[in-house]
Amino acid sequence: MFAVIMCGGSGTRFWPTSRRQRPKQFLDITGKGPMVVETCNRLSGLVSDEEIILVLGAEHLEEATDLFKGREIHMLAEPVGRNTAPCIGLGAIYAMHLGCNGAVAFLPADHFIANPSRFLKDLRMAGEIADAGGIVTLGIVPNRPETGYGYIRRGQGQIDVGGEPAYRVSKFVEKPDIEKARSYLTSGEYYWNGGIFVARPETILKEMAKQLPELYKGLQRLADVLGTERFGTELKDVYGALRGISFDYGIMENTREDVYVVPSECGWSDVGSWASLYELRTSERDRAQNLADGETLLIACENSFVSGNGGRLVACLGLKNTLIVDTADAVLVADLNRSQDIREIVDRLKETGKDRLL
Amino acid sequence: MFAVIMCGGSGTRFWPTSRRQRPKQFLDITGKGPMVVETCNRLSGLVSDEEIILVLGAEHLEEATDLFKGREIHMLAEPVGRNTAPCIGLGAIYAMHLGCNGAVAFLPADHFIANPSRFLKDLRMAGEIADAGGIVTLGIVPNRPETGYGYIRRGQGQIDVGGEPAYRVSKFVEKPDIEKARSYLTSGEYYWNGGIFVARPETILKEMAKQLPELYKGLQRLADVLGTERFGTELKDVYGALRGISFDYGIMENTREDVYVVPSECGWSDVGSWASLYELRTSERDRAQNLADGETLLIACENSFVSGNGGRLVACLGLKNTLIVDTADAVLVADLNRSQDIREIVDRLKETGKDRLL
Repeated sequence: MFAVIMCGGSGTRFWPTSRRQRPKQFLDITGKGPMVVETCNRLSGLVSDEEIILVLGAEHLEEATDLFKGREIHMLAEPVGRNTAPCIGLGAIYAMHLGCNGAVAFLPADHFIANPSRFLKDLRMAGEIADAGGIVTLGIVPNRPETGYGYIRRGQGQIDVGGEPAYRVSKFVEKPDIEKARSYLTSGEYYWNGGIFVARPETILKEMAKQLPELYKGLQRLADVLGTERFGTELKDVYGALRGISFDYGIMENTREDVYVVPSECGWSDVGSWASLYELRTSERDRAQNLADGETLLIACENSFVSGNGGRLVACLGLKNTLIVDTADAVLVADLNRSQDIREIVDRLKETGKDRLL
Repeated sequence: MFAVIMCGGSGTRFWPTSRRQRPKQFLDITGKGPMVVETCNRLSGLVSDEEIILVLGAEHLEEATDLFKGREIHMLAEPVGRNTAPCIGLGAIYAMHLGCNGAVAFLPADHFIANPSRFLKDLRMAGEIADAGGIVTLGIVPNRPETGYGYIRRGQGQIDVGGEPAYRVSKFVEKPDIEKARSYLTSGEYYWNGGIFVARPETILKEMAKQLPELYKGLQRLADVLGTERFGTELKDVYGALRGISFDYGIMENTREDVYVVPSECGWSDVGSWASLYELRTSERDRAQNLADGETLLIACENSFVSGNGGRLVACLGLKNTLIVDTADAVLVADLNRSQDIREIVDRLKETGKDRLL
């Protein structure tokens, strides 16, 4: 099996730790090393380094080269970000170029998996279905009525792979409101869409030819020059002319047949916010449910998350549900329950020209 | 009139801005310059620089010398702090040594006065009463049932000085509970004890001879060598052997006669905590009652006090009643209503040997 790691994007939700030059996927926010490295490492046993293709932003190529020094991982730098459909298409033609004749797993670089062996088992199962021509998505079994994710509804068709069930997909569903999310949870027919897909490159390209013909044409141009000096120039031309579109929206939502979901209980989290990271690290909290990194001093605080890695003491007194993130040039203090609104701060910094802090 | 400015003490309540080496009286926390300088400046018109005696800790002599460069202010360095009674005694003998033959005002270096001209008028009145042999204290007219201050109860005897009333003191009262504080406020007979006294040095020394004979003896030893080379050595000996005692407790509470209170509505505040400073600077707050200094960015915050003078951005999101003080080597985040408990942080730093942050 090959793997295409989607490593683009410059998430703002972990500001001030994440910056344009060091987005979330390059940060060690879970304590297991930079997320993209962990994403590659957890594949070992299923995918070798030479079968991994990292698709990333050109501005992060140097950082990634450093991180993977001495490893045979392939890297493809996108000249501009165009969302996941072009990224997956590029990964697909590159995997074929490298001689891949089976399934490819397409994986976001910045997700957390609590149970990697379970995850590999599910990927392997998805690979078997994909080898036979399907597009397979991992469906994360929900444990709460989450409104922040899209959902996948399973349909009637069930297939068994080694005794475990997979399902035909009935439909992809947008982020629900809380009532819908509750009904999804109780129905048992819905899974979180973690953005993890497995398919043979030919399958992907065939769907793209049908549903995104312009993208397909561009990919054909690129496939012709792969491995030649002209690739870089062509890539700039093709990407420059493409419109950004997600693989979910551009392909998955309209694909009628041969789309499957493999239910997965691998302890997945997209770690989409500081609050989500706080949830993830339950076992590291103190009795008052405080989570503290770095040089900190907490007195009479509860349910707070203090990241004191700015090289100075962070002293806290009488706080509740508070998030503090200290860095060398900026310190964030926020209501932990509002950590998804941090982009408002980043927006304001952009508006006021404080680019040095972005 | 002479003035003795009591500039000792290493308040911890403004940590992390205040430190051992730079206690509150040397900080510019009200935006009018270092408090001790402002305390001296507001006396101009009543007391000339040559009539000002600064009594301070030896460790702050250099800082003070810098602050008052080019001015003829006298400085006396205490080898160790022994509370206000010895400090006032030392100021008294030094004022006599300098030729003072009238009243001396004894003033804390770290208080705020909103209305300096009213303050000088009240001091002048106190000076007239003191010239005739009384010990006079300014009684701050209370505007709220404050439990954090001691009170002065006025007695029956009233004297008029230029049409304004002063009163004999009935008694000095400890910090009350909230019910008592409310009754004090409504009675109209109680004033806050701001620790501001006016008296002739001879009057002070006479009372000390009666009530604190050991201190008096020490002061006599010092008076004998004032202006000689032996003064420094004697001062160390005398202070080393003294017990620390406040002027309130050691003298004022037991003086039976000739103690007066001059009611003062000078807009006094002891600025005893960050919360008290926040109260003081009402007019500088924004519509949501936030007060922000330095490079800050506040989104959806209210009733918060953000001091971003640590050379980095302080970004705040969704905070209420929160205090943030950023400095180069420490940042404090606290419930603004608990700012009087900051000493707990300082105590903890001492216990854990983090002296560099004290």
